[in-house]
Amino acid sequence: MKAVRLHVYDNKPVIDDVPEPTAKGPLDVVVQIGGAGVCRTDLHIIEGQWAPKTGVTLPYTIGHENAGWVREVGPAVTNVAPGDAVILHPTPTCGLCRACRAGDDMHCENNSFPGIDTDGGMAEYLLTSARACVKLDPSTRPEDVAALADAGITAYHAVRKAVPLLYPGTVCVVAGAGGLGHIGIQCLTALTATTIVVVDKNPEALALAEQLGAHQTIVADGKHVDAVTELTNGNGAEVVLDFVAEQGAQQDGFAMTRRNGSHFIIGYGSNIDIPTIDIISTERNVIGNLVGTYNDLVELMVLAQAGKVTLHTKTYPLDSALDALDDLDNGRIRGRGILVP
Amino acid sequence: MKAVRLHVYDNKPVIDDVPEPTAKGPLDVVVQIGGAGVCRTDLHIIEGQWAPKTGVTLPYTIGHENAGWVREVGPAVTNVAPGDAVILHPTPTCGLCRACRAGDDMHCENNSFPGIDTDGGMAEYLLTSARACVKLDPSTRPEDVAALADAGITAYHAVRKAVPLLYPGTVCVVAGAGGLGHIGIQCLTALTATTIVVVDKNPEALALAEQLGAHQTIVADGKHVDAVTELTNGNGAEVVLDFVAEQGAQQDGFAMTRRNGSHFIIGYGSNIDIPTIDIISTERNVIGNLVGTYNDLVELMVLAQAGKVTLHTKTYPLDSALDALDDLDNGRIRGRGILVP
Amino acid sequence: MKAVRLHVYDNKPVIDDVPEPTAKGPLDVVVQIGGAGVCRTDLHIIEGQWAPKTGVTLPYTIGHENAGWVREVGPAVTNVAPGDAVILHPTPTCGLCRACRAGDDMHCENNSFPGIDTDGGMAEYLLTSARACVKLDPSTRPEDVAALADAGITAYHAVRKAVPLLYPGTVCVVAGAGGLGHIGIQCLTALTATTIVVVDKNPEALALAEQLGAHQTIVADGKHVDAVTELTNGNGAEVVLDFVAEQGAQQDGFAMTRRNGSHFIIGYGSNIDIPTIDIISTERNVIGNLVGTYNDLVELMVLAQAGKVTLHTKTYPLDSALDALDDLDNGRIRGRGILVP
Amino acid sequence: MKAVRLHVYDNKPVIDDVPEPTAKGPLDVVVQIGGAGVCRTDLHIIEGQWAPKTGVTLPYTIGHENAGWVREVGPAVTNVAPGDAVILHPTPTCGLCRACRAGDDMHCENNSFPGIDTDGGMAEYLLTSARACVKLDPSTRPEDVAALADAGITAYHAVRKAVPLLYPGTVCVVAGAGGLGHIGIQCLTALTATTIVVVDKNPEALALAEQLGAHQTIVADGKHVDAVTELTNGNGAEVVLDFVAEQGAQQDGFAMTRRNGSHFIIGYGSNIDIPTIDIISTERNVIGNLVGTYNDLVELMVLAQAGKVTLHTKTYPLDSALDALDDLDNGRIRGRGILVP
Repeated sequence: MKAVRLHVYDNKPVIDDVPEPTAKGPLDVVVQIGGAGVCRTDLHIIEGQWAPKTGVTLPYTIGHENAGWVREVGPAVTNVAPGDAVILHPTPTCGLCRACRAGDDMHCENNSFPGIDTDGGMAEYLLTSARACVKLDPSTRPEDVAALADAGITAYHAVRKAVPLLYPGTVCVVAGAGGLGHIGIQCLTALTATTIVVVDKNPEALALAEQLGAHQTIVADGKHVDAVTELTNGNGAEVVLDFVAEQGAQQDGFAMTRRNGSHFIIGYGSNIDIPTIDIISTERNVIGNLVGTYNDLVELMVLAQAGKVTLHTKTYPLDSALDALDDLDNGRIRGRGILVP
Repeated sequence: MKAVRLHVYDNKPVIDDVPEPTAKGPLDVVVQIGGAGVCRTDLHIIEGQWAPKTGVTLPYTIGHENAGWVREVGPAVTNVAPGDAVILHPTPTCGLCRACRAGDDMHCENNSFPGIDTDGGMAEYLLTSARACVKLDPSTRPEDVAALADAGITAYHAVRKAVPLLYPGTVCVVAGAGGLGHIGIQCLTALTATTIVVVDKNPEALALAEQLGAHQTIVADGKHVDAVTELTNGNGAEVVLDFVAEQGAQQDGFAMTRRNGSHFIIGYGSNIDIPTIDIISTERNVIGNLVGTYNDLVELMVLAQAGKVTLHTKTYPLDSALDALDDLDNGRIRGRGILVP
Repeated sequence: MKAVRLHVYDNKPVIDDVPEPTAKGPLDVVVQIGGAGVCRTDLHIIEGQWAPKTGVTLPYTIGHENAGWVREVGPAVTNVAPGDAVILHPTPTCGLCRACRAGDDMHCENNSFPGIDTDGGMAEYLLTSARACVKLDPSTRPEDVAALADAGITAYHAVRKAVPLLYPGTVCVVAGAGGLGHIGIQCLTALTATTIVVVDKNPEALALAEQLGAHQTIVADGKHVDAVTELTNGNGAEVVLDFVAEQGAQQDGFAMTRRNGSHFIIGYGSNIDIPTIDIISTERNVIGNLVGTYNDLVELMVLAQAGKVTLHTKTYPLDSALDALDDLDNGRIRGRGILVP
Repeated sequence: MKAVRLHVYDNKPVIDDVPEPTAKGPLDVVVQIGGAGVCRTDLHIIEGQWAPKTGVTLPYTIGHENAGWVREVGPAVTNVAPGDAVILHPTPTCGLCRACRAGDDMHCENNSFPGIDTDGGMAEYLLTSARACVKLDPSTRPEDVAALADAGITAYHAVRKAVPLLYPGTVCVVAGAGGLGHIGIQCLTALTATTIVVVDKNPEALALAEQLGAHQTIVADGKHVDAVTELTNGNGAEVVLDFVAEQGAQQDGFAMTRRNGSHFIIGYGSNIDIPTIDIISTERNVIGNLVGTYNDLVELMVLAQAGKVTLHTKTYPLDSALDALDDLDNGRIRGRGILVP
């Protein structure tokens, strides 16, 4: 089968021909990919930013945002069967460790992360596990929802953690209205009555944000921190959802947060550097966010099926994976790019 | 009356003779100081670290950790009367803003912070408000509990926020077993069944920590991060209570925190500088902490009266305030220094 | 001035001529009533159901849901001034007890409840306190929002407590779509993405519920518990907001709740009688709800000003108070009746 | 093998000879029983109180509180191996439903409850699943900890839910200091600084309660509600942990709860009957409690291994099961009875 594989860091991936995976373990599931999302993390992987964290052996297949149809299952699988349409939680988990027993899938002691530390879904088939499969309504096309498997769940997870802080009268800044941010805005609209202020460099992204429910949009032109401060009567926002968190945005994100507020780091790429006196004199928090739980993905699918979260996607054939990565890197995608094998 | 006043940043304070305060406003309360704690923040104030945040006009009286006896009250005061022994919440609040109406005293929109941004308690008398007064049992001597008014409440507040994270089987690192840390250890012992690991440069501080309930103590000798990692099977601690957060300790604090863990910043003085990829790939948090609420102080007094929190103090006459500050700066105080006018 | 006063339990109130109140205490505020809501609790007061709880001395003025304009203030009042339009939190509080210091206004140890245990607002003027006043936008007419002061805050408070239980995919039953329920539905729509199922005897109330965002409506015809069970695949609802809780509704409310679910009691009037084995074998909860906090009312006003909560009201002149009570008792009011002096 | 089986409701169980279970399914585990607790629920089962809830077919083996040694495992079991000492979570779960994915084992849609709705552990061997096994330290004897598998986990789960309500200065009433209650007291001592007030009919139980950390003990002699009211300055307790909840205790439990307090139902056997006006006018809650989660049991084992929870048990050979049930029914057991096959 065809697979988009990274051979050398800082070089473009290659579309190789590799053997199809098979379901050997009792809980193995082989999924025929219907849609594989293209994510900024793929760019970061290619740059080698994840290399010291994962130690993955090159070459391997990238693609960590996947949906498709079950084609083969191991002998102990009971929750899905060949033919089922599924969206995949990004990390197959063990189900037995403390974190799994607490529903905290991202912190499973034994999970894998296909597309990050093992072969992923920018391919015709993907090997995953029964515990990663969320069944889709048969009428749903995998390519239409694939971006919820990583961009969606990550945005949803961060919003859900922020909900208790976002009572009526609060302000939530969404920094970055791209692949994740445009979903985050919709999740905020569905789950809160907060005032949503979106900051992005790109006027088109801001126009989309407004359609999706943003109450205010601000061009990230260097004066945006002041603009947020003014808009909040000098206070800043109760929550900043920072979908960028690199190239200075991470410093702005903290600066836009009010006393007792929380800066949610979701994007990444640079260091955040804050005087501890600023943290304690205002009692502000910096909150890490990593993908989401299996139940987060199930809940997000409820929102999607109710039409409360809709994806703005641009599809590419698998053979055009490099174009898709290139378009993303150059800011030519509104919403999310999806490979359809 | 005598008062310890700062005239010039980076110079020693001076013991001046100034007029006694009087209760002019309806909720004003004048307290005769029975004990005023000496805190690392006083050193930071003298260094000018707080100057840009408070804009206080020099000279002014320092001392933000106070207990004593009510001497005069304004006409609308109903909760205390002259003669009552009281410990003082550090920030008199308005009682009417959103934060006050949520019990969140530290974020009152109109509070003052005597000793930080207005005249404090290193003096014979202090002007405060009815809303700051917590009545003491008549048998309690103010000098014996004064350190709970700031060191105590701050340690308690951080511990109370951490309690939900510290179920049996977890590890909590206490970084710094000084004035605040030695109270934090006792609060952890009273409110949780977590394993308490204390890190400090000073072997005497560690010996005290063990007496107070620490399960493990580690000398902060440069290998302490490795020691914590090893002790936690390579994982790190669910919570790090960082009572130091300067001179590198803030970086170590984050490094000792496990996946999904939280680094509580309580001390301060340097910058914390973390790659955002480290925050998101492990979903760790950096949590700000600022003093505590009025109810925190009331609860802490319950622990103190039950003998569950005892203070290690060293008393000085008011005239020896400079000696006390000097002893603190040079690590010659175990527990907390208290001025007794 | 005119005031609607109860002289004898189980007899109709009388419109008396009584002296106007004045602001004697430092925090007293006299409000000219612009709108006073008519509530089922007024009927329960007249029936004597509250007599053993309040011990109020008859005659007294009823009316616990009030908005209007400040006319006179005591010397220590700083947050409002004569002329301000205000909506009133129903219970003036002391601001100094544990509950007040935790933002938990309903459990103030020293509060009063005008209209319940002291003279209320079915009159031309009402005596209240600075701590009860929430300032209105000058363009808002008190009569248009008065019903938020008790019906609104009570519905909002219950919904806000339920929000953490109502993630996407859950079902919330609203039992009773009258004065409180029709606000509850709108709060659920604003703050959650739960599926809202409304149960009421009255088809007109159900029609209104649908307009306000109910996803399903069920006539309370004796088969409604079965209908909810069927609609939830035999499970019942995660949350039942029981705005009736009398005459059998309280038993149905519990019966419609699923394993690990919560039955919120908001209405009242009968006993709830449940086998403890049913409570423990399914781990269900019965949750009490009493009005709401000052901040709840502020948040609700945010929703109202954003058009997310709109009231369905029917106004009556003060002289027609008895007609209004009669209409309520006989189910002739959709939404809420408001007296406008 | 020998097994204690119930043939007819309201008749004594019989010690039968039945075939040993075998591990047929992939996740099956056969455990040789080292200790099986005797519980008031066994008496309730014999009385037929559970019959309409479980629909279990008679005869079957009772015993839902078990520990022992793994003897045989199915092919997909990875977490335990023959020879391992284990304590068993009472309900083997599916691991795939919403509740399991949230760590909420008791509400698994597909769980079984050996000893309640299928063959239990008052026998030489028990069939359970890998997901129910918590490995013990090899030095721990199963008979010494078996009572933690149901009495312990149930008490711990209720206490853990109550912890956020039990800040210093609060009062927690423990109603019933028997098999569950005596563990509950120790969990409260380990996890909170609340004032523990124990109510029981039996002076010996109260003496044990005092040894275990109770601050006050009250004989349940009909005046105990008044005694609690007086002791709490007329307020009642923030939390009542009702380990009895039958024969009037359930009414007393609610009566001893203060405004905004919570009555935790843990025992059962009678109806609770409360005016809804009492629930709403004080905003009190009735909280259901059912066993606990897998992680609860793991945490409780941490407390046990640290010596913070110790069991008071009385062992009987399996052949004396009827004596043990009889002793329990007649109040002749302090702590918990354990069958040792």
